[in-house]
Amino acid sequence: MMKQYKYPPISEWKSLCERPLQNQENLESQVKEVFSEVKDNGDKALKFFTEKFDKVSIQDLKVSESEINEAEKLVSEELKSAIKIASENIKKFHNSQQEEKNIIETTEGVFCWRESRAIENIGIYIPGGTAPLFSTVLMLGIPATIAGCQNVALCSPPDKNGKINPAILFTADLIGIKNIFKIGGSQAIAALTFGTETIPKVDKIFGPGNQYVTSAKQLAQNYGVAIDIPAGPSEVLVIADETSTPEFVAIDLLSQAEHGTDSQVILLSNSEKIINEINIEIKKQITDLPRKEIAEIALQNSKSILLNSINEAIEFSNYYAPEHLILAIKNAENFTDKIKNAGSVFLGNYSPESAGDYASGTNHTLPTNGFAKNYSGVSLESFVKKITFQNITKKGIQNIGKTIELMAEAEELMAHKNAVSVRLKYLENES
Amino acid sequence: MMKQYKYPPISEWKSLCERPLQNQENLESQVKEVFSEVKDNGDKALKFFTEKFDKVSIQDLKVSESEINEAEKLVSEELKSAIKIASENIKKFHNSQQEEKNIIETTEGVFCWRESRAIENIGIYIPGGTAPLFSTVLMLGIPATIAGCQNVALCSPPDKNGKINPAILFTADLIGIKNIFKIGGSQAIAALTFGTETIPKVDKIFGPGNQYVTSAKQLAQNYGVAIDIPAGPSEVLVIADETSTPEFVAIDLLSQAEHGTDSQVILLSNSEKIINEINIEIKKQITDLPRKEIAEIALQNSKSILLNSINEAIEFSNYYAPEHLILAIKNAENFTDKIKNAGSVFLGNYSPESAGDYASGTNHTLPTNGFAKNYSGVSLESFVKKITFQNITKKGIQNIGKTIELMAEAEELMAHKNAVSVRLKYLENES
Repeated sequence: MMKQYKYPPISEWKSLCERPLQNQENLESQVKEVFSEVKDNGDKALKFFTEKFDKVSIQDLKVSESEINEAEKLVSEELKSAIKIASENIKKFHNSQQEEKNIIETTEGVFCWRESRAIENIGIYIPGGTAPLFSTVLMLGIPATIAGCQNVALCSPPDKNGKINPAILFTADLIGIKNIFKIGGSQAIAALTFGTETIPKVDKIFGPGNQYVTSAKQLAQNYGVAIDIPAGPSEVLVIADETSTPEFVAIDLLSQAEHGTDSQVILLSNSEKIINEINIEIKKQITDLPRKEIAEIALQNSKSILLNSINEAIEFSNYYAPEHLILAIKNAENFTDKIKNAGSVFLGNYSPESAGDYASGTNHTLPTNGFAKNYSGVSLESFVKKITFQNITKKGIQNIGKTIELMAEAEELMAHKNAVSVRLKYLENES
Repeated sequence: MMKQYKYPPISEWKSLCERPLQNQENLESQVKEVFSEVKDNGDKALKFFTEKFDKVSIQDLKVSESEINEAEKLVSEELKSAIKIASENIKKFHNSQQEEKNIIETTEGVFCWRESRAIENIGIYIPGGTAPLFSTVLMLGIPATIAGCQNVALCSPPDKNGKINPAILFTADLIGIKNIFKIGGSQAIAALTFGTETIPKVDKIFGPGNQYVTSAKQLAQNYGVAIDIPAGPSEVLVIADETSTPEFVAIDLLSQAEHGTDSQVILLSNSEKIINEINIEIKKQITDLPRKEIAEIALQNSKSILLNSINEAIEFSNYYAPEHLILAIKNAENFTDKIKNAGSVFLGNYSPESAGDYASGTNHTLPTNGFAKNYSGVSLESFVKKITFQNITKKGIQNIGKTIELMAEAEELMAHKNAVSVRLKYLENES
């Protein structure tokens, strides 16, 4: 069960907000070795590590067209149509994030604006394991397509039969991702970082993964590759009041707890009664879950905290900076202005986290581990650069020329000053 | 002089685009030691390193109000008014980057939107040295203020007299930055990363610096602190045709070359005549520059490249991904759509780089070293997180519920599925 706390003083908030420690240091040397092997030996190293870590021998790293066609037959029509519906919502929301060109005349004759350009080469990592995370293919593939990224390479580890789950292949194909590779772990990240005979080098790597993948993404940055956001275990913070439905809150907490034993679940309320009722519901609803054992361990690291008011709960939540924040309270929309740090916020009784995980349209790649204080979740913007442009007329440079000259001179950069002076002199002579 | 190349085949572009190598590895251990000392000993360590590296003993790390008042008297009225004019333009352009709330109904009853929230604690680093980079105070301080960042800490190394340049203090005060600290180098970055008795821990660190500062910013990321963009030496790429004014192009190239001996300057043209004329102008204009020696060394690492057409030049530029790109060509605005990778672009004969460096309104903190392929320059967005919100009505969850259930089940996350099922069942019973 969750650990219970009552009215903790602010001095204790820091320790209450601590996430379970991630031990990364030990992985680093192994990941560095994988990087150096992949850099030197390309595909050969990839096949070696796949045999070593995934226990399967792969001839062709690239998924063939016939494998994709076969996958299409293996996915149920029901699931296909669900994926298509979710895909439309995700498209709609991410399409709305396109920015229109907005030319600003900062001074008469000085025109400045920004234009978005796709990052050309994108790598998407989709973890393997028992459950196929095709939803993440949607969340990363759709904005990449809207942005217009030219080359999208998707890597996912093969199973014991050398296959990638058909739902992943179907979803990738639906979005138009043609380059799918059977490679996982830190070796996949190394391949996307350096490029190999088969796998292209990319500019930015997206996607979740285990601690090896996380450590590899961090290392990739040293080689000039950008990454989506630093990663950590998934987490939810629910704020409930006496109007919330214990049955709903309990299952929302459980749906976070079932993710992994390191998942964090925080329940805040101003009502001891509702905390107790939610706890009773958790005990009831956990029994039928196939991932019950995982959820039970996660709950042991989790906390329910009784606070004085909803406002105090929101203050605590800002301090914690949760990946997911559910406001299961009366008039939830009245509290949104007070939320300072969170990845994605779910308002009211009918906005479960799983809606955002799959189908409402928002992205589910979000900052964990307190990173909601300084990082946004993935959006269309994650797949573009915004380039600034300026077009200055003769009149414009005459208007701001003196300002530039004075500032450049004060910074002792004479050529910067002269770049304006020669133009001003030229214009004087011209007139 | 610049190295000259004529019609290089595409196979040679890669090597032509290589930046001078940055040797970082050797710094790492020194920077790590500084971090560990500052973490353990706070202000005491800061004072120790300031004596060691800056050769000055500092009593109060924080700049006092009387020092700020004194600084105001030392800056000329002319420069003050120039800084104010630049500041207004920068405000206007960055204000235009505010995003309006745009609620999208992705499916009937499913409402999704994003809201921006300031990153609360910001650190700004301003290098010391002979020239006071007060323009960077504007470029980082103004968007931080517009975003509404609560706490802005500015660090800059003290000079031999234990002072920070008055132009920096005046500019910081103008913007409303109250917390200014006399501390530089990797010890300043360590202080902002961990916090000390005097200097606050921050969420994100901005600003240029030497290789120690760059290495320290990279290390800060391991402790959960975000940074603006990875750094490298400054660079400009100019594309000129037979219509451009050699006098202007020459001084634009020189204004980049004077930055530092590691600056990179690239000139592309489809006209050998104009390249020759520009070279003659460079020789003429370099003679009077106070930073002539620096510019000469930078030019030795620089290249002029004759290509077949302006379109080929733009292709080369996209391959190079310059920090600054000047299109000193006829009808420059017709070529903007073709630009894929650049930090900031200057169009036509009257848009010198120094306009964007100081006063046109665009930001001068830009991706160098090829990072324009995968990073944007600093903008208002660098100082905020965008939080997604969703509000789903009863009707909304009934509309997308089945989709979520099917997808969660296929990903074997039963509690995710149940989070919807319990709500759908509840609504069924309610009706």
